[in-house]
Amino acid sequence: MKHTKVKDLLNSTKPIDGISVKGWVRTFRNNQFLALNDGSIIHNIQCVIDFENTPAETLKRITTGAAVAINGNLVESKGSGQQFEIQVTQLEILGDSDPEKYPIQPKKHSLEFLRENAHLRVRTNSFGAIMRVRSVLSFAVHHYFQDRGFVYVNTPIITGSDAEGAGEMFHVTSLPIGNPPKTEEGNVDYKEDFFGKETNLTVSGQLEAETFAMALGQVYTFGPTFRAENSNTSRHLAEFWMIEPEVAFNDLDANMDLAEDFIKYVIRYALEKCPEDLTFLNQRLKDEEKNKPMAERSEMSLLEKLRFVLENNFKRVSYTEAIDILKNCKPNKKKKFNYIIEEWGADLQSEHERYLVEKHFNSPVILFDYPADIKAFYMRLNDDNKTVRAMDILFPGIGEIVGGSQREERLDVLQQKMAELGVDEEELKWYLDTRRFGSAVHSGFGLGFERLVLFVTGMGNIRDVIPFPRTPQNADF
Amino acid sequence: MKHTKVKDLLNSTKPIDGISVKGWVRTFRNNQFLALNDGSIIHNIQCVIDFENTPAETLKRITTGAAVAINGNLVESKGSGQQFEIQVTQLEILGDSDPEKYPIQPKKHSLEFLRENAHLRVRTNSFGAIMRVRSVLSFAVHHYFQDRGFVYVNTPIITGSDAEGAGEMFHVTSLPIGNPPKTEEGNVDYKEDFFGKETNLTVSGQLEAETFAMALGQVYTFGPTFRAENSNTSRHLAEFWMIEPEVAFNDLDANMDLAEDFIKYVIRYALEKCPEDLTFLNQRLKDEEKNKPMAERSEMSLLEKLRFVLENNFKRVSYTEAIDILKNCKPNKKKKFNYIIEEWGADLQSEHERYLVEKHFNSPVILFDYPADIKAFYMRLNDDNKTVRAMDILFPGIGEIVGGSQREERLDVLQQKMAELGVDEEELKWYLDTRRFGSAVHSGFGLGFERLVLFVTGMGNIRDVIPFPRTPQNADF
Repeated sequence: MKHTKVKDLLNSTKPIDGISVKGWVRTFRNNQFLALNDGSIIHNIQCVIDFENTPAETLKRITTGAAVAINGNLVESKGSGQQFEIQVTQLEILGDSDPEKYPIQPKKHSLEFLRENAHLRVRTNSFGAIMRVRSVLSFAVHHYFQDRGFVYVNTPIITGSDAEGAGEMFHVTSLPIGNPPKTEEGNVDYKEDFFGKETNLTVSGQLEAETFAMALGQVYTFGPTFRAENSNTSRHLAEFWMIEPEVAFNDLDANMDLAEDFIKYVIRYALEKCPEDLTFLNQRLKDEEKNKPMAERSEMSLLEKLRFVLENNFKRVSYTEAIDILKNCKPNKKKKFNYIIEEWGADLQSEHERYLVEKHFNSPVILFDYPADIKAFYMRLNDDNKTVRAMDILFPGIGEIVGGSQREERLDVLQQKMAELGVDEEELKWYLDTRRFGSAVHSGFGLGFERLVLFVTGMGNIRDVIPFPRTPQNADF
Repeated sequence: MKHTKVKDLLNSTKPIDGISVKGWVRTFRNNQFLALNDGSIIHNIQCVIDFENTPAETLKRITTGAAVAINGNLVESKGSGQQFEIQVTQLEILGDSDPEKYPIQPKKHSLEFLRENAHLRVRTNSFGAIMRVRSVLSFAVHHYFQDRGFVYVNTPIITGSDAEGAGEMFHVTSLPIGNPPKTEEGNVDYKEDFFGKETNLTVSGQLEAETFAMALGQVYTFGPTFRAENSNTSRHLAEFWMIEPEVAFNDLDANMDLAEDFIKYVIRYALEKCPEDLTFLNQRLKDEEKNKPMAERSEMSLLEKLRFVLENNFKRVSYTEAIDILKNCKPNKKKKFNYIIEEWGADLQSEHERYLVEKHFNSPVILFDYPADIKAFYMRLNDDNKTVRAMDILFPGIGEIVGGSQREERLDVLQQKMAELGVDEEELKWYLDTRRFGSAVHSGFGLGFERLVLFVTGMGNIRDVIPFPRTPQNADF
């Protein structure tokens, strides 16, 4: 008999005779009430067992985590808490779960403990919900761009370039690391390596995506990117997924419009498609915050925060305006910031971004027109010759979620900038070809997908929104 | 003025006054007819220039590859070949393209030449079409699984495991290659490496995906995978994208049903969404085959082949049946095969697979129940104790496109197999936990995305269906 998903049974509008269901035991009470979950929805279905006619040996094997197959009838529940339940006519234990050994017991586990058991944590309500929301958000990303005629581009993961400029890179090699072939000069002979040269893991697909945008018009990437940076924080991963749209003929204003519209779309999509999971995560966050001092609790619940983002325009603020605000704000004057803002040109730290977003504007903020000196070589120089058409989107509780820019489309200006910064022109010859042949205004941005998932799920640590996090000293599983 | 996509203009049902369009010049004839492409569709739109009232200086700059912005009116075309064209009222050159230097001239370029110019080849009709079809196929993959309640799982790219068993791995390190810190014994001290141990690039997300399937029921991966194998063929890449669904409670039959249904869905989706691109690629292949001797030409056109796959059941053939067919076939008896099939247990080579698919059955074939000895440790042992519940899907012209299996769900059998093959149980402790706690029948498969794109686009070399191919001695761009 073909089995039915728990989700479909719970959404049934009428009783059904003769159903079959398969899943895992979450709890078993009174030798009678089996809460069954199959991952299709956060809720369990209650299965009522005729324990008087079930062998004691079988009842003993109905333990948390056991896999079972159940035949029975879907009937209206006499108990409270559920509309339907299953009257079990037949129960088979597919796979046991020794309660003495199974780590995921029906009690509260710490997030740290669950991180160490990342292969099992998805069997909990919280991580089931997070991973379903993550999946739906991924689909929303593709939906948004594909519906608008963007072409999905898989930019390379292994790159021969180290000029992407976004951060420290991991080396990729097929040579024996401690004992590679050497050249006569005693250097590693990368000609002997798989690709015949030094290669790294990509930190961004932007430069390659630009070459595609200059042919296909609108493109986006959505793939893993890497940073070999020793950032052991709740906001950083060594391996994370990034979304990078790139659009020919878009200037920075159009780029900001696109980013804001995109973020609102995917959040709205998750609200529509994941009501049960987000309701659960909303409550989870409330419960978690109950243990915090009043001052540290959020003013808004998770669902309120998500709706707030949808219903309000992101505040667009130039870097220059932001510096004025920061220079004159209380924490700066009272020297509460670790980095005091003294003058135009200062790089903003996360404490400043948080002040702007969480205290001053109390809203997502788009900062734009940054000083050229603190931004990447490929960003479009403004006519003032000192700022570039860069933008960062800052989110409450998350910090930077998007970094983007209009790209420098003028070959000569770009070459001069590369020379100043010591970026090897020969290595990026292919990139410069986009400016040599049919160059045009174009813009794009990068959105760190895990930061988006963090925001939408209300979780506090980025390691909890990716299946198997990679961080310094950790590549388990 | 907001510009309109060429696709929307070509699909217009009526003339429109006052339109704006931006794109790149494909050709410019008679100082008058500018064929403009913006990547939104394979077709160009004809822009008719009032050359008598356009400065000669501007006309000279309308060269292949130049970026232009055009204002004008969409009018019915008097010429043949198009329904609508643009009467240009204003033309601006956004970015020049020196015809002496621009590599992509309006003539036939070899695929080899274009591969060396992968950053520009997407500006050709063929590669524009291929990349749009690739993008639509990607979306079809997500659509198929998400519509059916599968959860998308991003399994890790950097893995601490080298037991995935699917092939040679690339090393990932942040240590200086050639001069890494050493232990007292003189070995590389991986404790000093970023992750505190040896790490590699994943060859498969299957094992991690299994842990998720045993909680969420139905999951799929779609991400890059890697092989450090020196396979310099038209079918192999060192970096390629793989789709790996994994389903709890599915046996091998259900797994084969899923794979066949999935493949048909995504091909049908591409046929529906990419009629212009596939019509073009269909003709491209016909033209290419005209230069081949009659015997090497396909019996079916590309579109016919795609429809054939949709309309016919894949032939399901056990390995044992396949060996019988091969042992008794002409090329085997006449010793035309490089590897003569003598007895049951032989590993099938690509020549044998091609014979079965292209000569004997003339259809996609699913081979199943392979000898245990030639398959991976995690595959479900049959009751005959000598075959495993493995399946490969073989496609005409492509060879293996899918490899899958029912997984060994019995802890003791799996442990014994791992011990026999020397797979380290300690390292895969987390994987074995899925069999320790709530184990159940489950199955999955891996589909090499580029091989699918190869089949759907009718291209002959896998390097031509991924934006920037990585192969031995090549990691350009």
